Amino acid sequence: MKRIGILTSGGDCQGLNAAIRAVAKTLYNYYGTDGVEIIGIIDGYRGLIYGEHRKMSPENFSGILTMGGTILGTSRQPFKLMRVVDENSVDKVSEMKKNYKKLNLDCLVILGGNGTQKTANLLREEGLNVVSLPKTIDNDLWATDKTFGFQSAVDIATNVIDCIHTTATSHGRVFIVEVMGHKVGWLTLYAGIAGGADIILIPEIPYDIKSVIKTINARTESGKNFSILAVAEGAISKELAALPKKQKKAAISEMAYPSISYKIAKEIEDATGRETRVTVPGHFQRGGSPDAYDRVLSTRFGVAAAQLVIEKDYGKMVALVNNRVAAVPLEEIAGKLKAVPIDSEVVETARKIGISFGE
Amino acid sequence: MKRIGILTSGGDCQGLNAAIRAVAKTLYNYYGTDGVEIIGIIDGYRGLIYGEHRKMSPENFSGILTMGGTILGTSRQPFKLMRVVDENSVDKVSEMKKNYKKLNLDCLVILGGNGTQKTANLLREEGLNVVSLPKTIDNDLWATDKTFGFQSAVDIATNVIDCIHTTATSHGRVFIVEVMGHKVGWLTLYAGIAGGADIILIPEIPYDIKSVIKTINARTESGKNFSILAVAEGAISKELAALPKKQKKAAISEMAYPSISYKIAKEIEDATGRETRVTVPGHFQRGGSPDAYDRVLSTRFGVAAAQLVIEKDYGKMVALVNNRVAAVPLEEIAGKLKAVPIDSEVVETARKIGISFGE
Amino acid sequence: MKRIGILTSGGDCQGLNAAIRAVAKTLYNYYGTDGVEIIGIIDGYRGLIYGEHRKMSPENFSGILTMGGTILGTSRQPFKLMRVVDENSVDKVSEMKKNYKKLNLDCLVILGGNGTQKTANLLREEGLNVVSLPKTIDNDLWATDKTFGFQSAVDIATNVIDCIHTTATSHGRVFIVEVMGHKVGWLTLYAGIAGGADIILIPEIPYDIKSVIKTINARTESGKNFSILAVAEGAISKELAALPKKQKKAAISEMAYPSISYKIAKEIEDATGRETRVTVPGHFQRGGSPDAYDRVLSTRFGVAAAQLVIEKDYGKMVALVNNRVAAVPLEEIAGKLKAVPIDSEVVETARKIGISFGE
Amino acid sequence: MKRIGILTSGGDCQGLNAAIRAVAKTLYNYYGTDGVEIIGIIDGYRGLIYGEHRKMSPENFSGILTMGGTILGTSRQPFKLMRVVDENSVDKVSEMKKNYKKLNLDCLVILGGNGTQKTANLLREEGLNVVSLPKTIDNDLWATDKTFGFQSAVDIATNVIDCIHTTATSHGRVFIVEVMGHKVGWLTLYAGIAGGADIILIPEIPYDIKSVIKTINARTESGKNFSILAVAEGAISKELAALPKKQKKAAISEMAYPSISYKIAKEIEDATGRETRVTVPGHFQRGGSPDAYDRVLSTRFGVAAAQLVIEKDYGKMVALVNNRVAAVPLEEIAGKLKAVPIDSEVVETARKIGISFGE
Repeated sequence: MKRIGILTSGGDCQGLNAAIRAVAKTLYNYYGTDGVEIIGIIDGYRGLIYGEHRKMSPENFSGILTMGGTILGTSRQPFKLMRVVDENSVDKVSEMKKNYKKLNLDCLVILGGNGTQKTANLLREEGLNVVSLPKTIDNDLWATDKTFGFQSAVDIATNVIDCIHTTATSHGRVFIVEVMGHKVGWLTLYAGIAGGADIILIPEIPYDIKSVIKTINARTESGKNFSILAVAEGAISKELAALPKKQKKAAISEMAYPSISYKIAKEIEDATGRETRVTVPGHFQRGGSPDAYDRVLSTRFGVAAAQLVIEKDYGKMVALVNNRVAAVPLEEIAGKLKAVPIDSEVVETARKIGISFGE
Repeated sequence: MKRIGILTSGGDCQGLNAAIRAVAKTLYNYYGTDGVEIIGIIDGYRGLIYGEHRKMSPENFSGILTMGGTILGTSRQPFKLMRVVDENSVDKVSEMKKNYKKLNLDCLVILGGNGTQKTANLLREEGLNVVSLPKTIDNDLWATDKTFGFQSAVDIATNVIDCIHTTATSHGRVFIVEVMGHKVGWLTLYAGIAGGADIILIPEIPYDIKSVIKTINARTESGKNFSILAVAEGAISKELAALPKKQKKAAISEMAYPSISYKIAKEIEDATGRETRVTVPGHFQRGGSPDAYDRVLSTRFGVAAAQLVIEKDYGKMVALVNNRVAAVPLEEIAGKLKAVPIDSEVVETARKIGISFGE
Repeated sequence: MKRIGILTSGGDCQGLNAAIRAVAKTLYNYYGTDGVEIIGIIDGYRGLIYGEHRKMSPENFSGILTMGGTILGTSRQPFKLMRVVDENSVDKVSEMKKNYKKLNLDCLVILGGNGTQKTANLLREEGLNVVSLPKTIDNDLWATDKTFGFQSAVDIATNVIDCIHTTATSHGRVFIVEVMGHKVGWLTLYAGIAGGADIILIPEIPYDIKSVIKTINARTESGKNFSILAVAEGAISKELAALPKKQKKAAISEMAYPSISYKIAKEIEDATGRETRVTVPGHFQRGGSPDAYDRVLSTRFGVAAAQLVIEKDYGKMVALVNNRVAAVPLEEIAGKLKAVPIDSEVVETARKIGISFGE
Repeated sequence: MKRIGILTSGGDCQGLNAAIRAVAKTLYNYYGTDGVEIIGIIDGYRGLIYGEHRKMSPENFSGILTMGGTILGTSRQPFKLMRVVDENSVDKVSEMKKNYKKLNLDCLVILGGNGTQKTANLLREEGLNVVSLPKTIDNDLWATDKTFGFQSAVDIATNVIDCIHTTATSHGRVFIVEVMGHKVGWLTLYAGIAGGADIILIPEIPYDIKSVIKTINARTESGKNFSILAVAEGAISKELAALPKKQKKAAISEMAYPSISYKIAKEIEDATGRETRVTVPGHFQRGGSPDAYDRVLSTRFGVAAAQLVIEKDYGKMVALVNNRVAAVPLEEIAGKLKAVPIDSEVVETARKIGISFGE
């Protein structure tokens, strides 16, 4: 009898349940429902640290393909605190190892984003058998072309821009849609193109507010009475980007606005006299049913991860490489961030149809 | 040859174009395309004041049924400034009368919310022939059971709550969705019920933060690890609601948060220790294609308004009364607000399934 | 301890689970979870006849607000066979009474359409305590302005027409969308108006194919290169409608086409030479998550039904009358059909914007 | 002054307007609006044959990103008739060449599927400068990983299966959703996986009806009271697939059912006694607004095609190869079909989670 643990960690996103289902279905199909026991670890690594889990049965994985969120619960467990002993003298890493042994697991399947993969690699280094899957709406995981959750989040952010479009044109206003993404701009870039934004500001390409204003004024002069900006949470001005890391952080945390979009809005209003509004869809972008694209991708990843478990090919993350599902050693991934290449074809595509990056 | 003006005023919403189309199609069908000329007034009353308009043709009204926004443009022209002479010595009311005469209009069809209806009534008092339609996502117009735009906005706010639901359950968090509505809670009430919110806070029912916290704690104790609050922009605490009007206004404007939801979130976090997040979909709620419900309602209103024009039955707003389209004298409507009756059947419905209003 | 049975019967639709949830939540809130036991009857009346049921718990009703279908299962049990003893000598009515007694029910809550209400009335006549709710996408239940399921089905059929619109205009084709509704045309009428159909054919208004063809030709001549027809499953030509009932039935069953739309398509192609395509969304129209409108309506109905149970006000169906939830004696409803009044305001609305009914 | 023609040919799909817009915006941006004239050829190759066209202006390409269909119109012009002189003695190929010259075009941009690409290659052979884009919901174009339109059609077919799911479970029925695709099964495969179908039948993998029935019976025995089949229009039984081409064609055309799904439904009902229903969404699958995925892909393709025009790199189709946009010589593509490889990873994925292909 095989015993496989499974956990989801970090911010939730669309497709987690679809991936969990695919892992389970593949294992049950291969080993038979009597040949494998699946242990759900509750609320991510926290459950592994504190020993919270439940024995799953095939019924638990039925009907969850279309469900948002994760049936296992999740929590954020910052990697940098993983080796820190907590306030109750709990040594997290040794607790996780202890619980893994106690549960008598053959392997632990881990679904998560960048931080999660780092901890997965740490567990691998500690001798545990782990297999992982790349989930995040940010699409910022190294070694995979796409993460699941990303496309569904693009759909939602695009829909928001679509709706804002009709109100922007009716009122002749400037509108900023703040899209999730503190470190990378994938989501903003794709939703911005799909939604027909006029200006896209992402962390990878620091903006010059004068350039932004110039673009808006040029539109006004050409008779276009509105402008739409898709702005990533982590958009940053050239001045700020040029600062040393510490000063930059300080400057951001001292910003007198709820978020960067409000600052940009104020600057646009002051410079152009145009009414400028901000919309922040926020967590809305990571919830709800996965779209068809993510359901297929999650299923492919889930099957591939189960296959690694079956083949005892541990220590790897499944990934999409040139449209094919591959397996990449965790040590090659951990700690790396996949940012938008500033001269990539998609960025160039945007530039060529006249979208400004505020450069 | 009849000459009919048409304008949309105030915040845009779904269904404006569907209503405009119905007005135009009915007039063209009745008078023939050679028997009526439709004059589009640009950007609401502003266009009437400053004489901006364009001659419409039947093609302009084709294919707009599903479009959000308004093809005529709109602007906010506060009623209280209508009788004020502006900085260029423009006397707005007399300019509007002058332009109405100059355009040689038989009637002016006006689509708008509460402020718009007040100005429509003013124009009626000044002797112009007007017919109006009730549009607003707020559903706060007196004399009509429903306004168009409302149901489409309910759809969007409900969808946001749906998405937040999956993320709230996965993370075991408290989530606040701030729904549009400064003065009335219709949108929050309906979206809250439709989205399965646990707590609904609306302006009509001032809340007690202790009651809100008690409900959240009771849910936690009963094993429900998350709570969803649908909070209207104009939600107000009992303390504040009890203040005299001036002090209340001052207290609200001095609030140290971007909006009321952030204040409530802070209070919940402090009292319960539960992570509490806020989502503010904002203008997103008034954009995009009208839903099927609003398309039918807008079309019915548009046809009925055109019928009033044809019958020279001026000075009235079309309205939905007991599922039938009726016409109500503008003087009976102007200046009245339709708030949610605090013991209405829908509010009682919510209470009976265990939704708390923070009372 | 109260014991309340609940069953869903007939074709499923959106909002059944939302209504079931509201019934249960209201009862649990009123009696306490220890004060009431809810018995789910499996697969509609069949479960009552053959004694299939399960004891429900509060968790069963959690998270089902947004789910399509019915968690209780359903089946079609034609009313006319209710008093017929079946092939296994089962006398259905007495079995249902026996099982009602055996389960020791205080009341049975029944969700269904026209046939279901007839059987509910029969059970009432037989001395059982019943309370019922009006569900059907057809909106053809007497005594209520709206049934739940209707608006969600309108959304779907409208969406189909929207999609067909873009393909029809691109190809310059005639397109028929066949909308559900064998006896009444509510769904076709509302989706037809909402989708911008050019021609609407419903059972209540028999069509003249020559008139249909004339309308299409007139559109072609005026430069519109496409036409969209929304046709109810039960649309009927004037010739057929004029036949005596038996002959009519025979003629319909002998029709050499899969459905009426294919016949109409052939006639249009033959007469106009225009390529004419048919789309039949079918059962798609009754599935999926209820829209916000139906979620609120189902919840209101569910609460009101539970209230009747609490007040022992049996033998009634909840209904929407002038936007207020009311209770109507089952004997007043049973056997009546609510058809579209052929000169109702909504039909007139369609006529006035130039939609043809093929008259 | 450059003069660039543009046409869309074959069945319409989502993303055509998005691609057209990207071509135009890129050209206007590069040459300036005074440096290029874009000629829209009306209704595909028919317009080129009969000289129907219109001069486009930048405004024509504004606001069309989200629109389904094609602003240029389209028609089906079978490749095999291209070299046939028509009933009015029109030699199509020489007329197309003549009109190309008459319009004084520098290049013709062609958007279409397999047949369209063959004709594009023919025009290239005849000496015209052509650049083409791969559009089709079928995803069956050689040399490109994805075509635009495909993902949007997957979304719609998946949504239909989702809705059918709730009704299938409620009624305990077998349901067949017939998905577009006469020659290839991409759309059925992806929608089947995304929608959670139990059985997927595609042209590439001929089915054995006994295997299909066995799967359904096995589900029934395991307590699953419903089954969902995603069946491609071109699904074919092993018996039929084994016949020589001519006999196969004859057998298919003589089939006594509206489509293959009805035949399969009958066979399932006869063998299992289970009620089996068919839904045929049809043209609905190719209409409506493109999803975010297709909007980005169409934009990338449009920009790349314009770039080929600018660089005078004629005779090529833009394609997606390993997530990068590439250009492939038309002669390498023409006449080839990209079918689903029967042992591809996606097919294996489906098999591993227990989906049957009726083998």
